[in-house]
Amino acid sequence: MVKAAVLGATGYAGAELVRLLSFHPEVEIVYLASHSYAGKKFSDIYPAMRGVCDMILSDDDISKASADADVLFMALPAGIASEAVTPELLSKCAVIDLGADFRLHDSTVYETWYKKEHKHPDLLKDAVYGLPEIHRSAIKGKRLIANPGCYTTCSILTLYPLVKNALIDTSTIIIDAKSGTSGAGRSEKVTSLYCEVNESIKAYGVTSHRHTPEIEQELSEAAGENIVLQFTPHLVPMNRGILSCCYARLKPGVGPEDVKKAYTIYDGEAFIRVSSDIPETKHVTGTNFVDISYRVDERTGNVIAIGAIDNLVKGAAGQAVQNMNIISGLDETAGLLAAAGPAF
Amino acid sequence: MVKAAVLGATGYAGAELVRLLSFHPEVEIVYLASHSYAGKKFSDIYPAMRGVCDMILSDDDISKASADADVLFMALPAGIASEAVTPELLSKCAVIDLGADFRLHDSTVYETWYKKEHKHPDLLKDAVYGLPEIHRSAIKGKRLIANPGCYTTCSILTLYPLVKNALIDTSTIIIDAKSGTSGAGRSEKVTSLYCEVNESIKAYGVTSHRHTPEIEQELSEAAGENIVLQFTPHLVPMNRGILSCCYARLKPGVGPEDVKKAYTIYDGEAFIRVSSDIPETKHVTGTNFVDISYRVDERTGNVIAIGAIDNLVKGAAGQAVQNMNIISGLDETAGLLAAAGPAF
Amino acid sequence: MVKAAVLGATGYAGAELVRLLSFHPEVEIVYLASHSYAGKKFSDIYPAMRGVCDMILSDDDISKASADADVLFMALPAGIASEAVTPELLSKCAVIDLGADFRLHDSTVYETWYKKEHKHPDLLKDAVYGLPEIHRSAIKGKRLIANPGCYTTCSILTLYPLVKNALIDTSTIIIDAKSGTSGAGRSEKVTSLYCEVNESIKAYGVTSHRHTPEIEQELSEAAGENIVLQFTPHLVPMNRGILSCCYARLKPGVGPEDVKKAYTIYDGEAFIRVSSDIPETKHVTGTNFVDISYRVDERTGNVIAIGAIDNLVKGAAGQAVQNMNIISGLDETAGLLAAAGPAF
Amino acid sequence: MVKAAVLGATGYAGAELVRLLSFHPEVEIVYLASHSYAGKKFSDIYPAMRGVCDMILSDDDISKASADADVLFMALPAGIASEAVTPELLSKCAVIDLGADFRLHDSTVYETWYKKEHKHPDLLKDAVYGLPEIHRSAIKGKRLIANPGCYTTCSILTLYPLVKNALIDTSTIIIDAKSGTSGAGRSEKVTSLYCEVNESIKAYGVTSHRHTPEIEQELSEAAGENIVLQFTPHLVPMNRGILSCCYARLKPGVGPEDVKKAYTIYDGEAFIRVSSDIPETKHVTGTNFVDISYRVDERTGNVIAIGAIDNLVKGAAGQAVQNMNIISGLDETAGLLAAAGPAF
Repeated sequence: MVKAAVLGATGYAGAELVRLLSFHPEVEIVYLASHSYAGKKFSDIYPAMRGVCDMILSDDDISKASADADVLFMALPAGIASEAVTPELLSKCAVIDLGADFRLHDSTVYETWYKKEHKHPDLLKDAVYGLPEIHRSAIKGKRLIANPGCYTTCSILTLYPLVKNALIDTSTIIIDAKSGTSGAGRSEKVTSLYCEVNESIKAYGVTSHRHTPEIEQELSEAAGENIVLQFTPHLVPMNRGILSCCYARLKPGVGPEDVKKAYTIYDGEAFIRVSSDIPETKHVTGTNFVDISYRVDERTGNVIAIGAIDNLVKGAAGQAVQNMNIISGLDETAGLLAAAGPAF
Repeated sequence: MVKAAVLGATGYAGAELVRLLSFHPEVEIVYLASHSYAGKKFSDIYPAMRGVCDMILSDDDISKASADADVLFMALPAGIASEAVTPELLSKCAVIDLGADFRLHDSTVYETWYKKEHKHPDLLKDAVYGLPEIHRSAIKGKRLIANPGCYTTCSILTLYPLVKNALIDTSTIIIDAKSGTSGAGRSEKVTSLYCEVNESIKAYGVTSHRHTPEIEQELSEAAGENIVLQFTPHLVPMNRGILSCCYARLKPGVGPEDVKKAYTIYDGEAFIRVSSDIPETKHVTGTNFVDISYRVDERTGNVIAIGAIDNLVKGAAGQAVQNMNIISGLDETAGLLAAAGPAF
Repeated sequence: MVKAAVLGATGYAGAELVRLLSFHPEVEIVYLASHSYAGKKFSDIYPAMRGVCDMILSDDDISKASADADVLFMALPAGIASEAVTPELLSKCAVIDLGADFRLHDSTVYETWYKKEHKHPDLLKDAVYGLPEIHRSAIKGKRLIANPGCYTTCSILTLYPLVKNALIDTSTIIIDAKSGTSGAGRSEKVTSLYCEVNESIKAYGVTSHRHTPEIEQELSEAAGENIVLQFTPHLVPMNRGILSCCYARLKPGVGPEDVKKAYTIYDGEAFIRVSSDIPETKHVTGTNFVDISYRVDERTGNVIAIGAIDNLVKGAAGQAVQNMNIISGLDETAGLLAAAGPAF
Repeated sequence: MVKAAVLGATGYAGAELVRLLSFHPEVEIVYLASHSYAGKKFSDIYPAMRGVCDMILSDDDISKASADADVLFMALPAGIASEAVTPELLSKCAVIDLGADFRLHDSTVYETWYKKEHKHPDLLKDAVYGLPEIHRSAIKGKRLIANPGCYTTCSILTLYPLVKNALIDTSTIIIDAKSGTSGAGRSEKVTSLYCEVNESIKAYGVTSHRHTPEIEQELSEAAGENIVLQFTPHLVPMNRGILSCCYARLKPGVGPEDVKKAYTIYDGEAFIRVSSDIPETKHVTGTNFVDISYRVDERTGNVIAIGAIDNLVKGAAGQAVQNMNIISGLDETAGLLAAAGPAF
């Protein structure tokens, strides 16, 4: 049994992680912390989990968390993990950070987009970007996993085959993404109130969203060239789900068959479902699946690739469990199929 | 392994049943039928299940369905099961009917409320009302299980301890219930369109809803007296969930402690969670749980008991699996805990 | 032109009032105050009103507000109006209080339910309960209008004909009410977040909601006897709307014709629509209408009367405008019909 | 008073038109037709309008409709208007067609995208594309107005200043648009059911949506060159609203000031609100406004222009009224401001 600890257990991503870990056949939860609700039972905050996980929440205490855990999950605001993670901590347990602090290889890029100093830039070289479908072999044996962001997971996996196979003019990439409201977190903000979100759609973070450099880093690496792209997220009145609609100009001579062949790179991936049907976010709700489809438009010369994930599962907690499975030597899908959510 | 067949596999209750059976560790699905989508794959209709259940849908064929199955689930419109179920069929396989045809012990009551003739009133005596928390021992060994309705499961279980212990004046019972829209089924009706349901709430079937006699039958049996009660359902703009808010006048001398004690009847039930917290439907979404709470109002002399279920799980497919587990000698919770849905 | 001032202009009720006043042909808005957003334009907070109302918001300043206004609307938390309203203020302008401070005739009842001292109990005798369909003649010429609550408006108007005509056993009244989420206000609370409210329904304030004594006061007055009743509100995942489902035992000998005749009391009311169709909240969204229907259940001996309003219009801002129209000598419907909202 | 007739009065666009016409101070409705509900009252189908518009619906009868009407509105499926409109009809009354039949100047383009023959290609030259902000002077005095589509209105008006001023490389235009579900109409389809639409987002009509050639026609005309562009619509779980997120590469040397200046073309337009705030569809719900904002991204060299409308108002019925006002010599905003919808 893998002993797991979670810091930030009552945010939406943290709570989803607790749900997945609770049903995971090879995991024992040994420690849950929540700064806001320390002293209460997890199921007091999430009554859905009454009888499933009634553990008392601790206040964040890294030394306690790491004392018993094999794997320590951090689901904390930006800037905290980069301070808390140390070589000493990593000597005690593996760390899977659901936050952004170890995702960008270059700390100056981090500081530009996140407007804060990175406390342990020296550790960045020891971290791996935890997107298994691309970095599986690098993840194995690592002690510090930077779990990717939600928009980024969806966008990178949707575009990766096109970029990796050099089928598109990378200067033309536009990613128009849409997210359910759980992506905004559980903090008390007027803009997250029911009546403010319901019956409306809006773009936000236009030209400035922090997931942009993360997508650019990974696609640049895949392309072997420096990519600058347009990323525009939207807020949708639904709880969960991300849809990334990605546009790019095909290179001269590239046709539908080349695109089709490129996506066979995902053949055999347990969590990626490439289909001719345009994805809908409801089809992946509660699951770790990525649904992808694409169209070549002969009128315009563009390819449109569309991906869908559950932002809290493949976009956060599910992918964290997938990474835990990999570094713990478990089947990569352990605990991630049986807990699939409702079909609609 | 229990071999299971499902007729009506693409309605909402049927599809939820396929989801639960797909993840059930002791079940093999041997046959799925859908009148509307015969010839297609189940996952063509429910792409969420792509890679999980890609079985080809057959047209309804009872003889084929029963040929290989140990348990035949029927999720069909009222009137079809009562014609299809025969002693011969029951000699081949057990039948769990998610419809209404075998729920009412008295065929004249059925005919009054459902406005159609019952084709096999002789079989009613062989059927058992499949509410395990009340009829568990009767269910064991039965071949024909009448799986209760959604409103009825929630309302009966919420009121049962009060009625069974004779704490209330049963002539004063009022059940004000609210349901998510999946309860209206997947058929093409203007009243089920998104823009018609969204941003509105309404009552319907006021004084005339077909679940009324079912609730009356079960509570009358528990009370040992004939109960006539008021039942009013409402349509709520959400996919899943039923909330039953039940009112009754306490008998003279009955106090909070008596009510509290009555609900201890559910101690040890795996799927009933009695709490001092007022239930919310989201806490049971995707699960087989029933959340119940109550208040005694000393100002009015009333007790208010409130129950919540997922109409498609404990109110249909989950309870059907629970019944299957019982008659198959499996652990009653098998396949019903691990497939729990998102915590929010 | 009536000169209007609004305190609390950026809460949901206040903002709806600004919308209605902006389109009112006989009103000039002279002052808007918002404690939270003083210094900003109203349309910065509600961009829907850009170009319609771009007035700068002041901080709450009663003396400024009353200097120019004929009518001062207060849409403030409980306890503030009772302190701010004085005989001197009333000598300068009429006050329409959308809060609860002047609704209950008996300050001890107020203090029991609201858990705070009433600062001007002496003024209660000068206030009128501003429900025009019941107190129209008393409203005329008054300077202090206690604008009714949302649940109360809907529940009182739905039950009033039955109570006034002594058709029901008033000890059996049960009101099961459902509200859209704007009723919870615009303050930053986890329980009002989109993901917390969406896809769920719950009861709250069971046995203890503050609108209870207000309903009891008005119905007791209509009945000429002291009424104690059961009131249970619910939170529904929609922005606007209240549905009150009211139950009571008919007195012996009372039949459908008596009930039908009782509701003719509303014949000629511009804003009450009695119909044989069960109401849905969407049919009154954005309007000042009250839709009412009823059923007599011969099986149970109960009458079920159901009413629907928009909580922010007839349940708050619209009714406040209606009261303003009355005390200002305008047509009672002025500014309230043309601003009707979408039909769906 | 303008005498108005509406064919297709009970579809969502038609019903919204009836709502707007009912409150229009200069309009008398003389005829309403609905093929599906002939013989019923309009308010039987839309109870929100009870007491506001209780006119009996006729079956479609063009000769009756045109007998009394000054303006005949057609809100019918594609292919019907092109057959019904004749020179004789236009000699009796003006026609405002909310459908697609007269929008495309070239009947072969119509036939390519709509897969049906155009019955009166000869009348196309007499029709005007009814987008007042672009074709106002041409609309005056016309008898046949092709009222633009919803996606098209939003997308054209958002991009028009950039195209008209030749600021962008038109070969790079990408329009990623999102619509509320009323855009799918009121017909009974599984894909429009509440549970199918709710809690999900999807793209549809990728590379093939019929509004594409309409956008291309109008922008090509503005640009003075042939434009081929990418248009991708999405279905969003909300009733109303369209958001068009438009991307294009700025031409070399074009900067933020050029873009800013281009949008001053809308100064003085009553219904277009250009702002530095990114639009949200809720801010235009129930209104005829178009909210537009834009960003220049110096990193990518792209401009992102975002527009929002209510698909049923500026995208259909409101624009039809605006056109009626123009051809009838009324103030262009008559009946369109007072009926503004809720601010949230």
